[in-house]
Amino acid sequence: MSVRQVIGIHSCKEALKVRTSQELKKMYVKQNWDQNPYLKALVDLARAKNLQPETVSIKRLNRLIDPKGEIHQGVYLELEHSFEFDKISFSEGATILVLDRAQDPKNFGAIIRTAWLMGVEGIFISARNSVGLTPSVVKAASGGLEHVPIFIKDNLRQCLEELKKRQFWIYALDSHSSKTIWAENLKGPKVFLLGGEGAGLRKSLKSLCDEALSIPQTEKNASYNVSVATAIVLSEALRQNQLR
Amino acid sequence: MSVRQVIGIHSCKEALKVRTSQELKKMYVKQNWDQNPYLKALVDLARAKNLQPETVSIKRLNRLIDPKGEIHQGVYLELEHSFEFDKISFSEGATILVLDRAQDPKNFGAIIRTAWLMGVEGIFISARNSVGLTPSVVKAASGGLEHVPIFIKDNLRQCLEELKKRQFWIYALDSHSSKTIWAENLKGPKVFLLGGEGAGLRKSLKSLCDEALSIPQTEKNASYNVSVATAIVLSEALRQNQLR
Repeated sequence: MSVRQVIGIHSCKEALKVRTSQELKKMYVKQNWDQNPYLKALVDLARAKNLQPETVSIKRLNRLIDPKGEIHQGVYLELEHSFEFDKISFSEGATILVLDRAQDPKNFGAIIRTAWLMGVEGIFISARNSVGLTPSVVKAASGGLEHVPIFIKDNLRQCLEELKKRQFWIYALDSHSSKTIWAENLKGPKVFLLGGEGAGLRKSLKSLCDEALSIPQTEKNASYNVSVATAIVLSEALRQNQLR
Repeated sequence: MSVRQVIGIHSCKEALKVRTSQELKKMYVKQNWDQNPYLKALVDLARAKNLQPETVSIKRLNRLIDPKGEIHQGVYLELEHSFEFDKISFSEGATILVLDRAQDPKNFGAIIRTAWLMGVEGIFISARNSVGLTPSVVKAASGGLEHVPIFIKDNLRQCLEELKKRQFWIYALDSHSSKTIWAENLKGPKVFLLGGEGAGLRKSLKSLCDEALSIPQTEKNASYNVSVATAIVLSEALRQNQLR
């Protein structure tokens, strides 16, 4: 089991709703929480799960967060929970994201949030050179982390090969590809592989892909924000699957 | 003419390429810029436009940026430039964004970047309760600001009425609408109206819309990040217009 720090109103609310009493370990709220309707609702949710929040100073809350600096909105939650690979659905229409070296916490969090709302089955990220499930990521995911299983992998190559064996078609997102996401049939089980900000996708991973797809853009030398690119391709896949 | 502060490698590069010598006013680079290939390229670009960059300490660079705190990557540019309303194309297929109370600089910057790459004609934002064209926004836009005209308006209602007169169809993005973006014909001249983070769209503006559209999502009570929602609807509009 791994420990996760959760901060922010939305993320804590979703964690308190979704996680079991056994998984919820500690909760701290800022002084005068009872004068804030959002924090009050969170305290009620926690108590309903037999978790007794402790009232602390804002200074203490600031110190708890690692790495420092993220805005906690007066609430901090600690939980123990691991994602289970066996719960992933490998059915027709399933979508999986693989992210190589995603380093910006806000982008990664936004990707998790979008993946949740688009019904993605799971996200695999590289262990090296990726931001982990830090409080900033959890907060930007706005509750999404309680719904989409995330697997941190030492070896993404192996992981792609495993998914191929399970009949997934592997697409690399690549702005240089002449084939667009709109020209492709995205109805089967599929993986979208994206590189992080700046660094892009490693060649060794690209070579494992079945196909490269691009999102059209007016300026060839620029690129979409990685969370924006992810959202665009996921929504196109969902559109095609819903229209089937 | 209004003054704009530009920071960050990508944004400064695009500004130096696009803006005229008359518009480029001042540039500062950090000490030892000649040992950094990106900064060196920027200095060359500036000199080619008769702008002589001044070498300064990082401390001084930090002090120049208003509001403080954004990472400048060793370069600061000041330019004078105003967007011209008359240059907007009101042709068939034209897309315009109207943003009510967008407050997060990273989201607003990402929206500008996406709008650029998707060929949006212009962006209108509310003067009140919106982040302006701050250095953080300019940097997150990653060069997009030199390509998409942005108009800061006291009265968005008036602005929507004006666009209606020019035959634009006004769509509000609204997660509660039963009609999705995929069920609508988006081939004509259109405006997408979106509310900022948290606050959402004001009723007084919503009432001016011709139609409300939603993006499907697995969880009704959550919502997409505003820059993600914008990207999804813009890409659907582009898809329909390219397939025509």
